[in-house]
This record gives sequence, C-alpha cells and structure tokens, in this order.
Amino acid sequence: MSLQNPVFIPGPTNMPESLRKACDMPTIDHRSPAFAAVFQPAVAGVKEVLGMTAGEVLLLPSTGTGGWEAAISNTLSPGDKILAARHGMFSHRWIDLCQRHGLDVQIIEAPWGEGCPADAMGAALAADTDHSIKAVLATHNETATGVRSDIAGLRAAMDKAGHPALLMVDGVSSIASMPFEMDAWGVDIAVAGSQKGFMLPAGLAILGVSPKALAARDSATLPRAYFDFGDMLKGYAAGGYPFTPPVGLINGLAASIAMLKAEGLDNVYARHHRLAEATRRAVGGWGLQVCAARPDLYSDTVTGVMAPDGFNGTDVVTLAASKYGVAFGVGLGEVAGKLFRIGHLGSLTDVMLLSGLATAEMCMADLGWPVKLGSGVAAAQEYLRGTAAEPIAKAA
Amino acid sequence: MSLQNPVFIPGPTNMPESLRKACDMPTIDHRSPAFAAVFQPAVAGVKEVLGMTAGEVLLLPSTGTGGWEAAISNTLSPGDKILAARHGMFSHRWIDLCQRHGLDVQIIEAPWGEGCPADAMGAALAADTDHSIKAVLATHNETATGVRSDIAGLRAAMDKAGHPALLMVDGVSSIASMPFEMDAWGVDIAVAGSQKGFMLPAGLAILGVSPKALAARDSATLPRAYFDFGDMLKGYAAGGYPFTPPVGLINGLAASIAMLKAEGLDNVYARHHRLAEATRRAVGGWGLQVCAARPDLYSDTVTGVMAPDGFNGTDVVTLAASKYGVAFGVGLGEVAGKLFRIGHLGSLTDVMLLSGLATAEMCMADLGWPVKLGSGVAAAQEYLRGTAAEPIAKAA
Amino acid sequence: MSLQNPVFIPGPTNMPESLRKACDMPTIDHRSPAFAAVFQPAVAGVKEVLGMTAGEVLLLPSTGTGGWEAAISNTLSPGDKILAARHGMFSHRWIDLCQRHGLDVQIIEAPWGEGCPADAMGAALAADTDHSIKAVLATHNETATGVRSDIAGLRAAMDKAGHPALLMVDGVSSIASMPFEMDAWGVDIAVAGSQKGFMLPAGLAILGVSPKALAARDSATLPRAYFDFGDMLKGYAAGGYPFTPPVGLINGLAASIAMLKAEGLDNVYARHHRLAEATRRAVGGWGLQVCAARPDLYSDTVTGVMAPDGFNGTDVVTLAASKYGVAFGVGLGEVAGKLFRIGHLGSLTDVMLLSGLATAEMCMADLGWPVKLGSGVAAAQEYLRGTAAEPIAKAA
Amino acid sequence: MSLQNPVFIPGPTNMPESLRKACDMPTIDHRSPAFAAVFQPAVAGVKEVLGMTAGEVLLLPSTGTGGWEAAISNTLSPGDKILAARHGMFSHRWIDLCQRHGLDVQIIEAPWGEGCPADAMGAALAADTDHSIKAVLATHNETATGVRSDIAGLRAAMDKAGHPALLMVDGVSSIASMPFEMDAWGVDIAVAGSQKGFMLPAGLAILGVSPKALAARDSATLPRAYFDFGDMLKGYAAGGYPFTPPVGLINGLAASIAMLKAEGLDNVYARHHRLAEATRRAVGGWGLQVCAARPDLYSDTVTGVMAPDGFNGTDVVTLAASKYGVAFGVGLGEVAGKLFRIGHLGSLTDVMLLSGLATAEMCMADLGWPVKLGSGVAAAQEYLRGTAAEPIAKAA
Repeated sequence: MSLQNPVFIPGPTNMPESLRKACDMPTIDHRSPAFAAVFQPAVAGVKEVLGMTAGEVLLLPSTGTGGWEAAISNTLSPGDKILAARHGMFSHRWIDLCQRHGLDVQIIEAPWGEGCPADAMGAALAADTDHSIKAVLATHNETATGVRSDIAGLRAAMDKAGHPALLMVDGVSSIASMPFEMDAWGVDIAVAGSQKGFMLPAGLAILGVSPKALAARDSATLPRAYFDFGDMLKGYAAGGYPFTPPVGLINGLAASIAMLKAEGLDNVYARHHRLAEATRRAVGGWGLQVCAARPDLYSDTVTGVMAPDGFNGTDVVTLAASKYGVAFGVGLGEVAGKLFRIGHLGSLTDVMLLSGLATAEMCMADLGWPVKLGSGVAAAQEYLRGTAAEPIAKAA
Repeated sequence: MSLQNPVFIPGPTNMPESLRKACDMPTIDHRSPAFAAVFQPAVAGVKEVLGMTAGEVLLLPSTGTGGWEAAISNTLSPGDKILAARHGMFSHRWIDLCQRHGLDVQIIEAPWGEGCPADAMGAALAADTDHSIKAVLATHNETATGVRSDIAGLRAAMDKAGHPALLMVDGVSSIASMPFEMDAWGVDIAVAGSQKGFMLPAGLAILGVSPKALAARDSATLPRAYFDFGDMLKGYAAGGYPFTPPVGLINGLAASIAMLKAEGLDNVYARHHRLAEATRRAVGGWGLQVCAARPDLYSDTVTGVMAPDGFNGTDVVTLAASKYGVAFGVGLGEVAGKLFRIGHLGSLTDVMLLSGLATAEMCMADLGWPVKLGSGVAAAQEYLRGTAAEPIAKAA
Repeated sequence: MSLQNPVFIPGPTNMPESLRKACDMPTIDHRSPAFAAVFQPAVAGVKEVLGMTAGEVLLLPSTGTGGWEAAISNTLSPGDKILAARHGMFSHRWIDLCQRHGLDVQIIEAPWGEGCPADAMGAALAADTDHSIKAVLATHNETATGVRSDIAGLRAAMDKAGHPALLMVDGVSSIASMPFEMDAWGVDIAVAGSQKGFMLPAGLAILGVSPKALAARDSATLPRAYFDFGDMLKGYAAGGYPFTPPVGLINGLAASIAMLKAEGLDNVYARHHRLAEATRRAVGGWGLQVCAARPDLYSDTVTGVMAPDGFNGTDVVTLAASKYGVAFGVGLGEVAGKLFRIGHLGSLTDVMLLSGLATAEMCMADLGWPVKLGSGVAAAQEYLRGTAAEPIAKAA
Repeated sequence: MSLQNPVFIPGPTNMPESLRKACDMPTIDHRSPAFAAVFQPAVAGVKEVLGMTAGEVLLLPSTGTGGWEAAISNTLSPGDKILAARHGMFSHRWIDLCQRHGLDVQIIEAPWGEGCPADAMGAALAADTDHSIKAVLATHNETATGVRSDIAGLRAAMDKAGHPALLMVDGVSSIASMPFEMDAWGVDIAVAGSQKGFMLPAGLAILGVSPKALAARDSATLPRAYFDFGDMLKGYAAGGYPFTPPVGLINGLAASIAMLKAEGLDNVYARHHRLAEATRRAVGGWGLQVCAARPDLYSDTVTGVMAPDGFNGTDVVTLAASKYGVAFGVGLGEVAGKLFRIGHLGSLTDVMLLSGLATAEMCMADLGWPVKLGSGVAAAQEYLRGTAAEPIAKAA
C-alpha cells in the first residue's frame, strides 16, 4: 500500500488536505493584481502569528537555512562580531553559516539538553562595553533536543546589559506552534519556515524584520542579491516580487494562517502543549527520560526520548520506518544514538499521536528495550481523555 | 482543525490518496476512444478480483442497493419465488427490496451473529421439487454483525439438492478484502460497491454476472430501464455506455485494482485477516466478546464488539465522534445498542488500526465500561509485532 | 502531452477546479452530523436554482436516465397513459423508458429541430375529457438538436385544457444554464444531472418534486426500491440517506451552487446566452445554418451546426478529436451525420469558446467544407468584444 | 467564474494537471530512503535534458535568480573579472547581481532584439591575453525580447580565442523547450528553473555544473552557505539534502521529465517550434513585426510583438487581463511599452494557442490598432492545420 501513516518527525509536518489544496493552484500571472490578492493576506497573517506591529514580513523562496542567511547578510558586514549559544545541532548550524560568511562568532557553549543560557549571554554582553557585538543569535526551539529557550529572558538580559545588538531568533520549529512575541520580546529578526507549524511543504523562509533591523541594511556590506530585503520590499511596493514567487505556497500560507486563526492561536498553542504533555506522559509510562533537562525547557513541538544504557535511539527510527512505515527523528550531532525524537507539531490529533506512541512502543519492545507494551499508550490515554474538550458521557 | 483521522466504519473506507487523484479527472468525451482506455482495464480487473472467467462485469452508476435491484430486475419476473436467509440488517434489506418488486421471498431466519444456514437452505431447496424457487440470495459478509457466510458451502448444498436456481451473492463488504471465487462457487450474480474494498467514493455498483444469469434476462419481465443489462452491454459493444458514465470513478476503479494487484490479492486478503485478528485480540484484551458466534464466522472486514451488560454500544460511537473525531459503526436492527462495530477494511495499516483501538479504549473507559486502558492496544501490538513483515532487529 | 483542451460537448461539461476539489473529499461517516453539513446546503441550493418553494429535492446516485425512471416509478402505475412529444433523441429515449415500464405513451411527433408542440399537446389534453392521461412529459432543452422548448407555454396549454396531469420536465441540459421556473411553470417533477450546468462529474440525478407529485406516490404501483422517494425522504428526516451517498459529489453540488450564486444566476444565464449567440454568429460567419428551426427555439447550451450538402457532420467530430484533441458532439438518430454539435455550457469563457470555434473552423477547412479560415472566429470576436463587461480602453 | 484560461506569459507556464498532482505529495521523511526514490530520477532526468554526461546536477530551493547567485558564488572570488553581454532585461539583471557580489563585469552592450554578440565577445576574450576574465555569462533565451542566442557560436568564439574562462549560461526560459547541449557546447554552468519548460510551480533552481566548475569551488572565496555546492553534494552522497528539500516539487520534476521523455525531447522541441512559428505567422497576419531582429534569433518560447507607432504594447496586456482574463507579458526596461509578449512554452496545444491569439486580436482591435479580426488567427490556423500530425481526412 502507498504511504499513508502520519509522520512524527519534527518537521516537515503532516499537512492538512485543505492546505495542500490551497497550494495546488493553477498558474496565475504574478505581475497581475491577482497575485496581490494572494500575497497580502499571507503577509498580514504572518504579522499576527509573530506578534509584530511594525517592520516587515519577508517571504523568501528558500528554506529556513536561507532565512538565516538572509537575516545576517542584510544586517551585518564581514568581520562583524556576533554572540551565539551552541546547545544543539540547529544552533550549531547557524553559527557555522555565520562563520562561513566571515562573521566573528563569540560562542557560548551549553550542554545539549539545556536552553540558551540567558545569564551567560547577558554577562558576555555586559563585558562588551564598546558594543562590538552587533547581533545576538538565539534558537527558540532546539529541534535536535526538544528544548525551548526563554527568549523573553534573553531580551531581559540584553536590556539589563544595556546592549544595542540586534536580536535574531530562529523560530523555525516553534513559530505557529508555541507562543512567539516579536514585539514583546524585542526580536529584530524572527526566522520561520513553511514546513513546520504552518503545515505546508518546505520552500518558504518566513522572516519578521523589525524597523531597527531594516535600518541596519543600509550599512551592512555582506554581499547579497537573491536574499536582498531591498529588492523584496521594492517588489512589494509594486504589488509583486523581484522574481517569480512560489504563488501556490504563498496561497497555502494565507490559508494556513486562516486555519490557525479559525482554531484560535491560543487554542493552537494549547493543543500543542497538550499533545506534548501526553507524549511526555508516555515517556514516563515507558520508564524513560526526555532529553530536555528541566520542565521549563520542555518543547511543545518535539520530544527527545533518551535511550536506556546499552541501547541506540537510532534503531527505533530505523525499525519504525522499515517495519511499520512510520517516521521518527534520529539524534543528531552530540546526541546521535543517544535518543530518538517524536515530533508532535502541526496538524495532529489525539488519535494520530496515539498511533505514533503505540508504534514507538512496539519498536522498543522489538529491540529488547525494557518497555512494556501498552504502558506509554495508557499513560497518554489517561492524560488525553482527562483533558479532552468533550464532557465525559455517562454509561447507559 | 479539519477532519483528518481515519474512519473505522465498515465502509465507506479510507481512500488512498492515489485513488482519489485517479478519480479526480478532467472531463473527457465518454463517446471517444479515450473512454475505452479507462473503462476496459476496470472491467478486466473486476473479473480478476471476482474470480470469474465467463459472463460480464457491469458497472452501474448507483450504490450497492442499486446493484441488488439490478440483479433481480434483470433475471426475475413478478411473483417469482426466491429463497433467502435473514441474519442481519443487510440480508434483511435485500429481502425487503425483493418484496417491493413483487417477488415471493421464502425467508429462513437465523440468529444475528450466525451466517447463512447452508443446511437449512439446502433442505428448503431439496423440498422444492418442482423448482419453483428461481433464485437463492446470500450475504457473503453481514456488515451488521461482522459475520462471513460460507458461500462454497451454500453452493454445495444447492448442488446436493440438484437445484437449478440462480445464486446471487451480496459481496459489498467482502469483495476485494476477502477471497471471493465466483467461478469456483458457482455464483450467478455477485454484487460489490466502489466504497468498500475498492477504497473509492460511493457511486458505482459493481456486478459480476454469469452467462446463466445473462440468459435469464430474456424471460425476466420485471420492469427495468436504467439498470437494464441489455442496454449496458449494447453500450459496451459500441465502446461506451447507454448514458453518461462517472468516468473518474471508473478510472479510480482501474487504479484501485492496479493497486490491489501490485500488493497481490492474496497479500491483500492476508493483510485484512491480520488486522481483523489484531482487532479480535484487542477485544479479548478488553475482556469483551465479538458478535460473530464462532471463529469460522469471523469477518475480516468488520468486527462487532458486544457491550457488557448494562452498557450501550451506541454510546461508544457517539462519544468517539464527538470527543475524538473518530467514526465507528453502531449496531443496527436487532443488535442496536448491543454492540459497536469496528471497520478494518480497505486502506489501513497497523498504525492506523492501533489508533482506532486506542480511541475505542478511551471511550469505553470514559463511559465506565470495565476496560483497562492499554489492555486492548497491548494485545493488538503483541500480535501485530509478531506477524509484521520485517524481521525483528536486534538491540545495539 | 496529456489532455488539457476544454471539451465542447453538450455535457459532461468542463469542471472548474474548485468544484473538483470540493468533490475530492476524504471519507466521512455519512451517518454523522458531518454529513448533514454537506447535504443540507446542496438541497437548499437546488431549490433556488429550480425556482421551487414547496415540495422536495431528491439527490439520487445515478445519472439523468435514473432520474427519469425515478420520476415515473414514484408517480405512475403500470398501464397509465402519458402524453409526450418526440422531437429529438432525448425526448425519444424518455418515451422508450416509459414504454419499458409498461406505460401507455401517447406520442406527438414533431420535426427534429422543432420544440415541444404546445398547441398539439394542448389539443390532445383537451380531447382527453376523462383525464386518462396521468402525466405530460417535456424535454426543456433537446440536447440532440439544440432546441429549447417553451415550458411556460406548455403549462398554459395544460391550464387552458383544464387538465390535471402531472407535468414532468427533463431539464438535464438546461437547468443551471438557462432560466428554469418550477413554481411559475407549474412543473411537478424537474430532472437535472450533476454533469451539465452544475459542472460536476456525472453521478447524481437531481430532482425537484412538487407536493402534488409526492402525493401521487401513494397510489403509484410501479415497482421501485432504489429510487423510492419514500425511503429517501425517511432518510433525510433522520439526517441521512437510505444507502451510502456519494458525499463528495454532494459536497461538490453545494460548492457549485455557491459558485453560481456568487456569479448571480441571472449573470450565469446571461453568460450562457452570450456565448451561445457568439457561437451562432460564428455559424453565420461560416455561411452555415443551425439546426433549431427558429430563433425562439435557440438553445443557450448547445448548437447544432448543419453540414452543407454532400458533407457529413460526424467527420468534423472525428477529425477534431484525432487531429486536435478537441471533443464536439455528433448528430444522433434522425440527424446523425447531418450536423455536428458545439456544447457551450457550464464553465466556459470567451477565450475558451474561441478556441473551440477556431478548431471547428480548421476541421471544416481540412474536410473541404466551403468555410473560410478565420470567418467564424472573426464574427464571434466581433460580437464578444462588443458585449464584454469591461469598457473598451483607448489607445495610448 | 474562477480563473481558468491558460496563461500566455513566458513563465511561469501552464502546468499539466498530472504534474501538479505529482507535486501535491503528503509529507515523507526526507532523511529516509523514500526520498532517494524521488530525488534520484529527478537528477538523472535533468542530466538528460541538459545533455550532460559529467559533472553534477544541483536542485536548489530558490528561483532562477538564486541559481544565478549559486553559479557565481561557488566559482568566483570578490573582484574577479567576468565578461557578459547586455541585450535585454534578464541579461541585465544577471550582470547587476554579479556587481552586487563585488565582481568586475566587463559589459558588451548589444541592441535589445539582438542576441549575445559572439564576435564581440570573442574579440574581448582574445584581447584578454592574461586570462583575467574568469567567466563568461550568456543568456540563452532573452525572455524580455524573444531572442535566442547562439551558445555553440559563443563557445566557438571562446575556443578560437583559446580562453579558459568558465562559460555560464542562463537557460531559464529555454531549457526543456529548446535544444540545449551542455556537453557539446562546453557549458560549465547551466541555470534552469522549475516554472518554465518543466511546467512546474516556481521554487527550484536547477543547475548543471561541469567538473571544471566544481573544481573552481575550491579556490572561490565569495561567501556562500545556503547555496554552497559542497553542502549539497555532501548531502547527496548521504542520500539526502543539507536542509529540508521541497520534496513534492522534486517529485514533480521527476514526473515532468518522464512526461517530456514520453513525448520525446525532439518532439517537445519540434512542438515548441511549431507553436512559435504559428505565433509568428499570426503576427505577420496582423501586419506587425516581432522584436527579434532576424529569423536566426527567433525564440521558440516567447515572441515579442512590436506595437505600431503611436500605440503602447502594455495596453494590450492590461486590457487582456481586465476584459478577457488572459495574461500576456509586458515589455520590460528598454522595450517597455514598445511591445507585448506572447509566451508559448510549456504545456500548450494548438487549440490553446489559438485562444491566446484570438484574444490578443480582440484586444488590439479594441485599442484601435490597425489589426483585422481573424487575420492572425487565420494565418496561424493555416500553418497549424498544414503541420498537424494527423493526415487530413477526406469529405464524406
């Protein structure tokens, strides 16, 4: 049979059929007013999701990685100093990208399983008395470990240090699934992607850019053309794009946001939290540990499940794919083999989640892990049924 | 969020996306050769699935009920005597339809949960020494109770009685999911529908008709026009249809059969049996009983789960729909309230089935049924993981 | 290349992509409230399109032919006398269907190219002083000749004769494309299909039934079960169907009517008239005649183009299909070979129509017909550009 | 009515439905073997279309503009000298992009309507005796003017000059529609996009890269990360991608190439030539001129139609969109207002093309251009019917 199980990777996520249909558009002329009718609702909607009232939203035909590149190449110059924490594969990759562009990255290392260390970041900023640090990079949700960092706390640390650096946040695996407050947190550039909380195919980097970051472009000398904010904004002003946009994907983005708003953003976040908590209950039911070091770090979009001693988390992923046709995420970098990851973001129901948990359970049993069949499922069921919306009916 | 959970009703079934895409065709001229290219593979494929080498396949734009009507109106005359067993809602409905068309139905009653009583049918035929009975009706799979009848046994009983009546079989919820042998069983008319084992939208009655049944049309005087086999076959001969056919649905049927054959019909049947057995293990894990009276009657497409004393099976269905967005089947007619039904046919994987079992489990717990969370899931998991195709990997 | 040209047959028609997407639904439980949310808007919308305020709308999984059968089997009894005119293939077929069901059809023959002769019908009714005629049948739009009959005139003739017969009208190729007034015209049963003006796949017969026709069911003894109005209405009352409905197609019907209403029914009719008139101008440009005898008979959904002496209309259809991949309609029955037909109903734009006219023109030239390339196109262009909505812009 | 007319812009092009369905995939794990099954046929197919046997194909989630950037950033260093001709908006834009990346572009200006001047380019290369020119840029098909340049001739000029510069060719609006011979022409980097001859949504830059260009990466110091060939090739080697790929679009690319190969690449090119020639005949029928200066420059994918004195080409585009819902291309840059453009590439039939020509004709007449209705259509019809595949049938 053709593939039909949901995926449980931390993105790309399961796509609602209505969004896929919104993406599947016939060709229109992107230089005609028909395009503006597609484009403008998408941009306006992203502002709502990001919690931004000033600045611009940029929709770049690329992936989140391209979004990172756009963020730095539009605001920084070769040799500029930036501050970043490394505590997982995705924070690592952004740092690497900066270095390749000739930036001088001051790296604060933190254990994988911890969040961005606001205190240490604040200390580094306080020590930078001549404000040579031009930007601070943070990863809101470390997809590799299932750890959410406290961006508000980081902003507080920056403010405390009285430091004027730009704050750039990778929200690829958090935005549209967990609360994000661009204005309130003083974020200068937020980077999201179409393929996570927005439940769309990969192909769009979605950036929120503050007026301060836009202004930084004037003096930023890193070379850029495809990702240049100026060309984009000139195109916007003319009702279009500097090149051929992926119209269907942008139409899907507008539809995605309409769907999120119909559910209510708060309800979307609550749903993600509930499914994440059910997953963590299942992990507890199995007698295992999550990767995130403390409850305040728990991600609501992905959970890293630590393998017991003597077992390899990657085996679960391999077996689930080959035997049951179900996709989980492997451990990456420092945590390779040490864990497997369950993605629980995007378009997901109680019922779908239970099927993933039941599958992981079978795989662990198959592999000889000390996990009892039904144990995690039962723990998740108990939590889910107690928190479901419908009042519990009585027996006849 | 929009509906996205699989359904667990005994039809219409979950549709593979590739089949839905095959149905979603632009308009073609059904009087052009392009139509024959769609139509002929569908007809040829149905013959393979039905196990028929002679006679004709008729694809009628209607539901299975229309197929029943076509079966009798093309072969019988007002006042003709027919023999039928009643042991569930669908066998009942076919009898009712015959009576409305003025046929004289000799009904053999059997308990709901039993199959078509071949012995009693054979005795009735043996007693019909002047062969006034023109047709015998049987329901291969009683969707209302989850009972499979032994059509080969019924044929043996007819042969033993030396009776020349036509044998008409309702295979709506069995064909393409459980073995069906039109030639070997001497079936004269087999009735299937697009929306069950063929995993398509409702809208096509699919009939296999033996040469003997085709010949009966010459003397059959029940009025007919829309369902007339003669018009259809005249249309076929001209490469078309007597009216505008549902081209997309017929294209989907061809694609469905190509998909079934790619898996292998025997593998399709084995998969259905395996998922059915997993469901029965879950019922056992819950400490409950299935409706089918004995293992030889177990249906591989639908399982009736008997409610414990003092509980109402319909409540599970209602709660699953309202609280979890999952569809199960209610009890119908004599078994209304006494059971709920889990459909496990069509496009279904281990993983999807487990989500249905987990949901039923939560509902029963919510309703106070004496069912332990995880108990049925664990029993199904144990069976499924032991019978899955992939050899079990070793721990690292 | 795969087929992508529009079709120019008088149905099934070109389907707007949004309607096809509306039809392409995942499986839902048709016994759940989710179905009512699909079904009720479709029924309410059909009432608006038919112009009916009392009675019931019945959506039968079948084609228009099944709709004809349902109309008579629910209202008449074997041997009942009915009155019908024959002036084309579709009026002929309905008569034939009635005869097969044992009705006694009094046939009034009219030339193919003429409409239903209201005067002759009226005279026959006036002569039927004992009211033995139980029903009058009329074909609103003869698809075979491109002739629209005057149903209001027929009703006037019935009223003038003071005759109580039921008035049943085949509106398969007119409804939703040309004005139809069930209440105003005193129509008792109107028969439409999904695949013409509603721009959907074939598979639904759509019937409007007056209270008088519903009442006739009580004494009507023609056998019926699948098409029985009583079962359907009982199903409706319970929020459902007597059998598995084609849910996607019904959802498409609701979407179709929403689309028609968004355009405005009057605008839909005006658009059809405009495209029909452009087609007739093209025929004039070619120096050819249409089949319809007089302007008041001109159909706005299909035009029969008479072949010049010595030429065969079917050749145009065959060549268009094989050489250019475009579908036109052949002549049927008495007008076979004498004409070819251009369907111009459903989802069609000026631009699409011009491509069909240009193709017919090439085919006629290829076949040696005395037709000048560009002549019909220019005549249609002249008409279309003068009647398009946009005010004509000035040169720079 | 919703938009349904074909577009006649020179990309994005009309998408065959089967390709759109191939793009519309459910989520799969791009780190699983399922992805390789999608990816490898796409890469292999691109090699065939490009006519390359060595080197690598890179599929970058971006537009053609991103492809240009990737081409230079992977092979050149800041301050490097390159040689390019400017004879249209797209050759201009590539030059601009190079300048923004700090390259020293030696520009050879040519009239808009001419091709890349191989002689002048050769002379410049011959004069560059110390080989300071590192790369030569050429635009195979200038989409802004409808001019095809002679890349083989440019290669001959390079060879004659004995110059080792890399040859980079923008084939965005030619590849898959007109012959392209990467190996035979000695092209080092060819840049294509998904949205033109491949008939897909925008979103993929498609690059063919020669071994020589790959080797140039080692010493190229332009900053790059998202577009870095090294990361991509490392990802390929591991069966994947350095970031989340647009899986559906890549699946569509594989399907596109399968469709092109089923038609036969030579037949695809011949079809484009035939439709282009029909368009040029129509222009002649109108008494107008094309923009391309000479027949050897005629593009087979887009035709620039020069406005008569006193008229503005953009008005045709504006009116066609507002009055008839049809998209043509405006003049850009130096030829703004002087022409309008008819795109005739990708998924297009005779019949579709005629609808575009008929529409342009109406618009010109509406605007008072001295163009006779039917004149261009008739000229195109005459050519098309004489060159269609089907032998012309005889009259009956």
